[in-house]
Formats: sequence, C-alpha cells, structure tokens
Amino acid sequence: MSADGFDELRAALGGRLLEDPESLIAYSLDSSRAKPGGRPIGVVRATSTEDVSFALAWANVRGIPVSVRGAGTGLSGGAVAYAGGLVVSLEAMNRIVSIDVENRLADVEAGVVTADLDDAALAQGLFFPPDPASARWSTIGGNIATNAGGLRCVAHGVTTDVVAALEVVLADGRVMRTGARTRKNTTGYDLTSLFTGSEGTLGVITAATVRLKPVPPGEPRTFRASFDDIEDAGRAVTAIVSGPATPEVLELIDARSVEIIEAFHPSGLPSPGAAMLVGQTVGLTAHETAGAITEICRAHGATETEISASDSLLEARRLANPALTAQGLRVSCDVGVPVAELATVFRGIGEIAERHSRRIAVVAHAGDGNLHPTVEAGESPEEYAAAELVIDDITRLALSLGGTISGEHGIGSVKRHELPWQQDAAALDVQRAIKVALDPRGILTPGRAI
Amino acid sequence: MSADGFDELRAALGGRLLEDPESLIAYSLDSSRAKPGGRPIGVVRATSTEDVSFALAWANVRGIPVSVRGAGTGLSGGAVAYAGGLVVSLEAMNRIVSIDVENRLADVEAGVVTADLDDAALAQGLFFPPDPASARWSTIGGNIATNAGGLRCVAHGVTTDVVAALEVVLADGRVMRTGARTRKNTTGYDLTSLFTGSEGTLGVITAATVRLKPVPPGEPRTFRASFDDIEDAGRAVTAIVSGPATPEVLELIDARSVEIIEAFHPSGLPSPGAAMLVGQTVGLTAHETAGAITEICRAHGATETEISASDSLLEARRLANPALTAQGLRVSCDVGVPVAELATVFRGIGEIAERHSRRIAVVAHAGDGNLHPTVEAGESPEEYAAAELVIDDITRLALSLGGTISGEHGIGSVKRHELPWQQDAAALDVQRAIKVALDPRGILTPGRAI
Repeated sequence: MSADGFDELRAALGGRLLEDPESLIAYSLDSSRAKPGGRPIGVVRATSTEDVSFALAWANVRGIPVSVRGAGTGLSGGAVAYAGGLVVSLEAMNRIVSIDVENRLADVEAGVVTADLDDAALAQGLFFPPDPASARWSTIGGNIATNAGGLRCVAHGVTTDVVAALEVVLADGRVMRTGARTRKNTTGYDLTSLFTGSEGTLGVITAATVRLKPVPPGEPRTFRASFDDIEDAGRAVTAIVSGPATPEVLELIDARSVEIIEAFHPSGLPSPGAAMLVGQTVGLTAHETAGAITEICRAHGATETEISASDSLLEARRLANPALTAQGLRVSCDVGVPVAELATVFRGIGEIAERHSRRIAVVAHAGDGNLHPTVEAGESPEEYAAAELVIDDITRLALSLGGTISGEHGIGSVKRHELPWQQDAAALDVQRAIKVALDPRGILTPGRAI
Repeated sequence: MSADGFDELRAALGGRLLEDPESLIAYSLDSSRAKPGGRPIGVVRATSTEDVSFALAWANVRGIPVSVRGAGTGLSGGAVAYAGGLVVSLEAMNRIVSIDVENRLADVEAGVVTADLDDAALAQGLFFPPDPASARWSTIGGNIATNAGGLRCVAHGVTTDVVAALEVVLADGRVMRTGARTRKNTTGYDLTSLFTGSEGTLGVITAATVRLKPVPPGEPRTFRASFDDIEDAGRAVTAIVSGPATPEVLELIDARSVEIIEAFHPSGLPSPGAAMLVGQTVGLTAHETAGAITEICRAHGATETEISASDSLLEARRLANPALTAQGLRVSCDVGVPVAELATVFRGIGEIAERHSRRIAVVAHAGDGNLHPTVEAGESPEEYAAAELVIDDITRLALSLGGTISGEHGIGSVKRHELPWQQDAAALDVQRAIKVALDPRGILTPGRAI
C-alpha cells in the first residue's frame, strides 16, 4: 500500500522508514485488547526530532492518520496503528542526554526505557520516582503521553508530577518547547501538563526534562499482610494512608491473582484467604514504619503479617500483568476511587462478579485507590464483549463512589465510550476545541483519548 | 457609564452588581504597579456560580471585557479592571463546603481566604500546603488562577500540585467541572492544570477540590544563618537542597530588605552583613534537621546561626512585601533559576545594581530558586520606567541561567513583553490557539497572561 508522495518520505528517512510486513504488523499493536482496523503504510523509526517533524509535516498536508508509539506497553489502545496510517516510533530516540545532580533533573529523549533512566539516576544517588509495573520495557515518552502511574505513586505522585519541560512536535511539524528547568514556573499556560497525558492526540513528545529525587538513606523494608476478607484489607489501607506512617508502595493482590501469578512464575507468594497487602517502606525508620503499618493491618483483621529486607514480594507483584496476559486475560481496567471508598468498592466488585457469574481477579495500587480488576473470560469476541459489560459495571460503581474511569492507563480507544459517564458536556467540548485548535486536520491519534 | 442591556444585568443581580464610584475604583486595582486604563461599568460581587455564569454570558454576547478578582493581592496586574469592562469578584463566594479528613480533600468556593482554609484544616489535624506570603488576604481562587507559590513550596510544591478538581465558568457562561476526587486521574486532558495558572483568561474558577496534608508530628523549629557574602548564602542553599536534610521553608532576606522590614515593623531581625537565610523544619527530627542545615550554612561561611522554637523569623519575612509597598517600592519581579545557579544570579544582580546605580533589595524563596528583587526607585512614571529596565536586565540574567521570568506571580500585564524571551514561537502560537478556541470573543482578561 502506498500514498501520494510516499517516495518523498522514503527519500528523507531512508532505512528509518520500515515497510516490511513483519514490522507493519509488529508496530500495529499495543498491550491492550484493541485491534488495528488494517495495516499502516509505514513505520517511522525516528532517530531525531527532525525525523518526527518531517513525518508529521508530511502526514499533515495529506491528512494521513498518525499513531505514536514508545515500547507498545500501553493498555488502552492508544498506540494501535490506523489502517492506511503512519506509525511514529520513538524507541530509537533513547539517549539519556544528561543527569544534573545539583538541580536533580534529567534530560532524556522520549524513547529511553523507564528503568534505564532509573538505573542511571541511581548511579548518582538519585532515582526516577514514577514506577509503572512495565518499567523494564516502557519508555519515558510513553509514560508521559499517558501520564503513567505505578507502584510508588502513593509516595511520589504520578508522571506529571515529575515532568519539568517537554520538547513536542506539533501536528504540522513545528517543534515546541514547554516548561522550565526551575522548580516553579508560572510563565504562560501549563502546556507541559496539558501535553502530559494527552495520549498522542496533541503532539508527539520527543524529549523531556524530568525531576529526580534523592535515594532515601537506610535499608528499605517490604511488608505483607494477609486477610480473609478483602473489605478488611480495604479498610486497613484507608487507615494506613490516613495516618502518619507513610509507605512508599502499598499494593493489594487478591487470592485469585496470587494463584495466577504463582502459576505463571512460582515466587513463593503465600496464598491469602482473600487478599494480601504488600508494600515497601524506606528511610532511616523503614523498619519501624513497616511495623506500624503491619500493626494497623492486624488491628483491621490481618491473619498474618511479615516484614522482610528482600524485595521478592514486589517482584512478584510486577508479574501480575504478564501472568494475566499469558492466560489470555486482557479485559481489565484501571478505575480509581477515593481511598476511603476501598472497602466499599471491593464489596461492590464481589457483587458484580456474582451477578455476572464471572470471576474477577483484582490487583490494586491500593494506597492511591487505583484498582486493576481483570474479568476472567475466554478469548473469543463474544467472551470479550461479555467481559466488557462487567468492566462497564465496575466503572459505573467506581464513578458512583466519586471515582475515575482511568487512574493511570489513559482512555485510548478502549475506554472512550465511558468518557461521558465521568465528564460533563462542557468539559468534553473544551477538550474537543483544544484538539481542533492544535490539530486542525485531525491527524494525531484521531478518535481516541477525548 | 452604561452598556446596551445593562438593565438586564441589574435586574438579574440586584445588589450584587456594584456601580458606585468608590467600588468601581476599589475593585479596579490589584497589588501590582499596573494601572487601569479607565473605569469599569460595574462590579459583579457574585454569591453563586449562577451569578458568574449569568454575568459572563451577558458580557460574551456583547463583547465586553471581563477582569476576574479574588482579594486583589496579585502582583502582575492580572486582576486590574478594563475601561468599560465588567469586574467579576469572587470574594463573597467564601464557603468552605466540606473537609473530607479520610481522603484529605477540601471542597471550597473560590473566594475562601487561603489562611481560613488552612485554619479549618488545622482543626482536623491537616493543613493546606500552599502558603503565599499574602495568605491572610489572598483567596484560593486567586491562588489557583495564578498558580501561586509561597514559603512552603520547597517542601510541598506549588498550588497546582494540590488542586484535584475545579468548577469553572467558561466565557459563554457554561459551567464545567474538571478533575476527580481520586489521587490519580488520567481521564482526558489535564484541564485542571491548564486552568490553574491561566490567570482568568480561559474561564472563571468558582470552586475547587484541593488536597490537604497531615500536620507533621513534633514541634517545628525555625533557623537563621547570617552571611557577609550573599553568594555564600546562595551556595549554602544549593548545598542544603541537594542534600538529605529537608527544610519546610528556606528563605533568603538580604541586608537591605532586613533594614526595610525593620523600619516598617521592628521585629528584632538582626542585621546580617550581606544576607540571612531563615527557614523552618518540621517533624519528629525538626531540631536535628535544623542543626544539619545550620551546619551546612557554617561550612559555607555563615558568621552566625540560630535555632529557635518561635516563628517570629518567618512572621518578619512575611512583612517584606507590605514593607516594600509602604515605601512605594513596587517595581519587583519573581524570576526563578535552577537552584544550582543561586550564587551566580546573586552575583549578577549585584553587577546589574552597580551598572544602573540603583539599589536592589532581594528576598527569595531561596530553596526553590525563586527570587523577588525590588528595584529602589521613586514613584514617578519616569522612575518606574527606569526601574523596569533594571528588572528587564535581571529577567534576562535569570533566563541566561536556565531560569523563568515568573516563578509564582504569573505574567498578567506587567511581564507580558518578556514572554517571547522565554517561550518559542510555537509555544506562543499554541497558547493563543487555545485562548481563541475557548474564548472566541476574547472577553476574558484580554491581552494578558499569554
């Protein structure tokens, strides 16, 4: 397949324009259940901002839809290719340009793998706070484009909290810089936050200046608490995060998820009656803080608790998504609720499971009220559709508790029908007006995110 | 003065529409050196979102410019009235609707005074982190509209970091809700951050959901360190904020500012050779942390240090702006630099003072690299103009060090000519495109902020 003027793009990009069938298929998917409607015409494997700029300008004058891609670990269908569209991949723009220790800033290209930045920062006594479960594969650019969350958000916030400045290529190919290298900046609109989480619909993020934090002194501790009642675990989390003991990580894994993880890769996770909380504390008082947290757990009905210097518990938690995916379990979501509503949302999910006669496995970034329920279903379109109805019910439940349809994965294509459940007509209109203003031909990830 | 259809506005608003000359003058100014070009036609002292909605819809169909006003403590001219325009004041919308202790959220109307919210939160063991020096007068809505900073930013970030959700009236009078009550939310564009700091140009913020933090245990400590060389003080700050000891407040007051504060309201501030650092530490290790900080100060040349349980040092620091204003010293700015550049920027400001033969008094939120240099000048237009040139030089200096033209006061009208010094053409275009998309008739704070 080709498009008018495609030779011009070929000439400009050379080997950085992939057209072989394997690449066209491989770069068409992300890690969600969304499927491309057909093949893209090519993949721009950019090695510079100029490549991205050239590709967008080329696509813009022709009205060709563009999907934008880091490592393809997104879970909402935001990076899935368009039939007849162009894929812009940032994976080869993977330079860590500099780490500025005194100002605690890193300058990176968009394709840097999250864990690689964290490792480079660690070598300087600093770390990169956002910590999506996919950190070993996901890219900083993708993290920023989706405003990714992760395990350490309860202590350090989400990706947008650490983005100081961006380089963005606009729909027409112009290059824009946002933000500043200072800790505070009130110059003009907060374009940095607007583009963070815009899921490739307003521009392509090619580079970023991100904030680092100092590694806390002392030895971290992990903790675990097992519960026979998942609602008790929810109440324990509410009590922990309303109190003075601050965990760096506070996750929930229900009994079914433990089973699935252990079947995928035996990690020695003990099977809880209903759910376990696992987490991490840091700093000079890490052990005491972990003790205070497990004590709260026991006061809320934990049957067993453990404090350890090993991080194998967290490693096991990180396997949840690969383990679920390996079983073909892809119909999940990332709803959020206010932390005081955790027990209520767990009870409600149990009722929904019963009503639909479907098992629902739950892992959660419990400390910030962000849940990942996965509906057990076969892989046929009919089974997916049935499972989607269960997800819709869970989403409505979260919203009824003051929650959000997406805590950290973004909307992409898979959650777009839910948007009006959360946002009013004026907010939807404002977002569409911004989209039209910045991408008048509608080439950038059209029909998704907003 | 009147406008077509003014009776309609009168009938709808009754006594909430002020037209007396005293009000028209009083509500025309903010705390900056900007002056209104003439009288507004009326002041809408809104008591409800409906009032704001009615007033904007009325102004929008007529193309009447609207300025938006909290307590008028802004320092950039953003709230100054337009000749023939309408003023929308939020000061009477001052209800603290609820404080949700478990989720650490407060629901407030825009006109709530910052310190009143903090007091109400303190009664529940929580506090409102942003802490502008004007907190006893400024309103939450104004804080949000300008993304205000303050003394505690070094520990807690700026206003945008605590805004979870907004209610906004758009230019045409429609009401929009943004954000969520959850800790994480990736649903759609981050309109909450876009409207935060938009200085009344995109909509009128009528209510907000803001995040609170728990009051740290233990007794706070204040500390002071005097330096004979302001560059040494700058190097001490860089060392402090690059190290493990975390102050909640870290301010610099130069010798000239101390003199001006003491003349305004004698507080017993000891006169430093060149500059003093004052700050606060909190938590169970507040005393040890203050000790570690003063030790760093001595290692960087402090001639004298003090640790105290009283907060009179910080109270004295809060008098800086009233003291300068009382002397007619209004030509100041709020540039920011990366914290590693503090010594360099202080040296540069000294050189600029010499070149212009003008004294420059400096106070600074030193811990986050945010400076408030004030140029000593008379109150005539010629003197102001001469002082503005000094500010321009300081601003260019900050930018040359990777800084920002505004760290916390916003652009308003007084800094608008500096915008292209910091932002590229694409960023300016994008902001204008957003402005036109959301306020096509250009009624909301036209000609300012971007």
